[in-house]
Amino acid sequence: MRVYFDNAATTAMDDRVIAAMLPFMKEHYGNPSSVHSHGREVRTAIERSRKKVAELLNTTPAEIFFTSGGTEADNTAIVCGIQTHGIQHAITSPLEHHAVLHTLEECAKKGMVKLSLLEVNDQGEINLDHLQDLLRANPKSLVSVMHANNEIGNINDLTAIGNLAREYDAFFHSDTVQTMGHYVHDLKNLPVDAIVAGGHKFHGPKGSGFLYVKKDKKITPFIYGGAQERNMRGGTENVIGIVGIAKALEIAYEDMDGHRKHVEDIKSRFIEKLKTDIPGVEFNGLSAEMDKSLYTVLNVSLPPSEENGGMLLFNLDLHGISASGGSACSSGASVGSHVLRAIGAKADRDSVRFSFSRFNTVEEVDYTVEKLKELYGVIA
Amino acid sequence: MRVYFDNAATTAMDDRVIAAMLPFMKEHYGNPSSVHSHGREVRTAIERSRKKVAELLNTTPAEIFFTSGGTEADNTAIVCGIQTHGIQHAITSPLEHHAVLHTLEECAKKGMVKLSLLEVNDQGEINLDHLQDLLRANPKSLVSVMHANNEIGNINDLTAIGNLAREYDAFFHSDTVQTMGHYVHDLKNLPVDAIVAGGHKFHGPKGSGFLYVKKDKKITPFIYGGAQERNMRGGTENVIGIVGIAKALEIAYEDMDGHRKHVEDIKSRFIEKLKTDIPGVEFNGLSAEMDKSLYTVLNVSLPPSEENGGMLLFNLDLHGISASGGSACSSGASVGSHVLRAIGAKADRDSVRFSFSRFNTVEEVDYTVEKLKELYGVIA
Ligand SMILES: Cc1ncc(COP(=O)(O)O)c(C=O)c1O
Ligand SMILES: Cc1ncc(COP(=O)(O)O)c(C=O)c1O
Repeated sequence: MRVYFDNAATTAMDDRVIAAMLPFMKEHYGNPSSVHSHGREVRTAIERSRKKVAELLNTTPAEIFFTSGGTEADNTAIVCGIQTHGIQHAITSPLEHHAVLHTLEECAKKGMVKLSLLEVNDQGEINLDHLQDLLRANPKSLVSVMHANNEIGNINDLTAIGNLAREYDAFFHSDTVQTMGHYVHDLKNLPVDAIVAGGHKFHGPKGSGFLYVKKDKKITPFIYGGAQERNMRGGTENVIGIVGIAKALEIAYEDMDGHRKHVEDIKSRFIEKLKTDIPGVEFNGLSAEMDKSLYTVLNVSLPPSEENGGMLLFNLDLHGISASGGSACSSGASVGSHVLRAIGAKADRDSVRFSFSRFNTVEEVDYTVEKLKELYGVIA
Repeated sequence: MRVYFDNAATTAMDDRVIAAMLPFMKEHYGNPSSVHSHGREVRTAIERSRKKVAELLNTTPAEIFFTSGGTEADNTAIVCGIQTHGIQHAITSPLEHHAVLHTLEECAKKGMVKLSLLEVNDQGEINLDHLQDLLRANPKSLVSVMHANNEIGNINDLTAIGNLAREYDAFFHSDTVQTMGHYVHDLKNLPVDAIVAGGHKFHGPKGSGFLYVKKDKKITPFIYGGAQERNMRGGTENVIGIVGIAKALEIAYEDMDGHRKHVEDIKSRFIEKLKTDIPGVEFNGLSAEMDKSLYTVLNVSLPPSEENGGMLLFNLDLHGISASGGSACSSGASVGSHVLRAIGAKADRDSVRFSFSRFNTVEEVDYTVEKLKELYGVIA
């Protein structure tokens, strides 16, 4: 059995997404910036994709910009948000993805901003009083707090954070890479200035992404060149990526509740079986609390073990099970997770992130728990 | 008849490129940064692609970084070249693509560098004495001069420019988007520090590109995030884009001479027929000189005409012929070309860029010249 439980790293593409992309590989190859018929038919596909994304997120097409992925979108929101709005202080959390954390550290290093890190507890919860203190001391800051954490699954309250940000005139960017396509984002009612997406996290193509920037918080470009994306991003458009991410989002919204229910059943069963079958099992962050964490992520902390210490992912892989230790979004997976360190996870326990999609089954859960029992020498 | 003569804007994908990409849409969907089997098989494909590109360009894999396109690669080389090497003065030409020109203008606006523009004559030829003067007055500059111009086709002498740059300790970046895949780049012997590519200019996918940076001129990242691309570019890799651009380059090198001969025949015939059939025809820049311009580009200046004034592209489009006025790489095609302005092209004449690929035929040339004769009221 080959089990793919690493959907927070990337997902398999939906066949319907591939089908939507194919015509733009072979037949419709024009440059969308060209004025002739070869170009116009492609331009139409891009603008239709933008309109679809905007509709699904309850916003306007003029606020959606396609990018090469979640990371570029995060970099754009942060770097250009700071530059355009003359921001001198930034606030983020130590649990952010490196696309946010390293970008802000770099801005601080270059002297563009002073950077403050939010306090988090050992469950990965952000101290909102600390946020308020920082905002009070530094109005007009940039606040960058993710919607949900890619490693431990914790969901942050964007409305509470956004309302605070508004109160102190901050620019509020949220890395929504892990929730896009899995949760509803209603941008007419969500107090955010910028959010982002990476298509490959919801069965779209890798190398696709988008950035939403609120109309009255417009920013300058990150990549300079042609007049593409309404002068917001130079470069010939990745047409198949754009068509693909829009189609993937459309499919995600078509039956989000159904998918959610399917994946929640998988996650609940996984939690229950682990609690029953693996003595001493624990869960990192809030990932075992169904209503406070991503339904797609379960971060399991396993008891100290000589056989598996540092080898758990490898041992699972030998049984055909793909999972991840901390975040697998960057090559240094073996370097250890800054998120688990920040919440003080115990160093003698092995942590493994299982992450799910609508393509997974409960049989895969049962198989995986069986293998974990074997690995941890639990007699059946 | 539908004729696509806009290959400098973008090309049709080669079927073999599409075939190489497809397995990475459906079967091999793992995240290349994941350590498990799903990830490793994809990592292998990326590193094999990097090795292939490096071999073809006669350099090492550690000097090749994949990007989202030519524009991002240009931005990276310029912005990070300046930042990493503490450069305070930049030299470029007014004929550069906006991916270079707007990026450098922005760097100048932000106070990162002082920017000097090279003198060019009315044929679009760069004044190398002026370059030397500027370098002498400003050693350790960044020099950014394109290999070949996308509008008028002029080919610049990278060896001469590079040798001057070396003499004055400059960082030499060349925008090679229009020559990559059409000409041989032998990086062991070419005195450049950074060159770039966009896959869609040589029958690869849009949204793919790469950047070469010479080992001893390493630069810091432009996009921060995970440790991808040896810490040089954060973001989950566009796997199909990477596999696609490497395959496209491989195909391009397989029979470059054959393709070149095929396209040169098309271009020569086009020039001859225009000279014979359209009284008063002229050519912009050096594009009619076969050995001094891209074999893929012919920029035609047509005599003043009431019927076609400002409507020529539209009239051609009505006859199924896709061509371009100036550069079609950005949406503002109708704004007019900064290149034609810089070489002082006459405003009362219509200019049209015909650009070719190995998928074109001489029959398409004959058809197009017939239509031009009709449009310009030339009696057969
Ligand atoms: C000379 C030149 N440089 C840069 C670019 C930008 O490439 P891309 O649009 O693929 O990012 C182009 C193509 O439009 C070009 O012709
Ligand atoms: C929370 C979060 N932000 C940003 C990213 C970066 O997205 P991408 O690698 O697609 O650019 C990821 C995925 O790796 C993520 O999980």
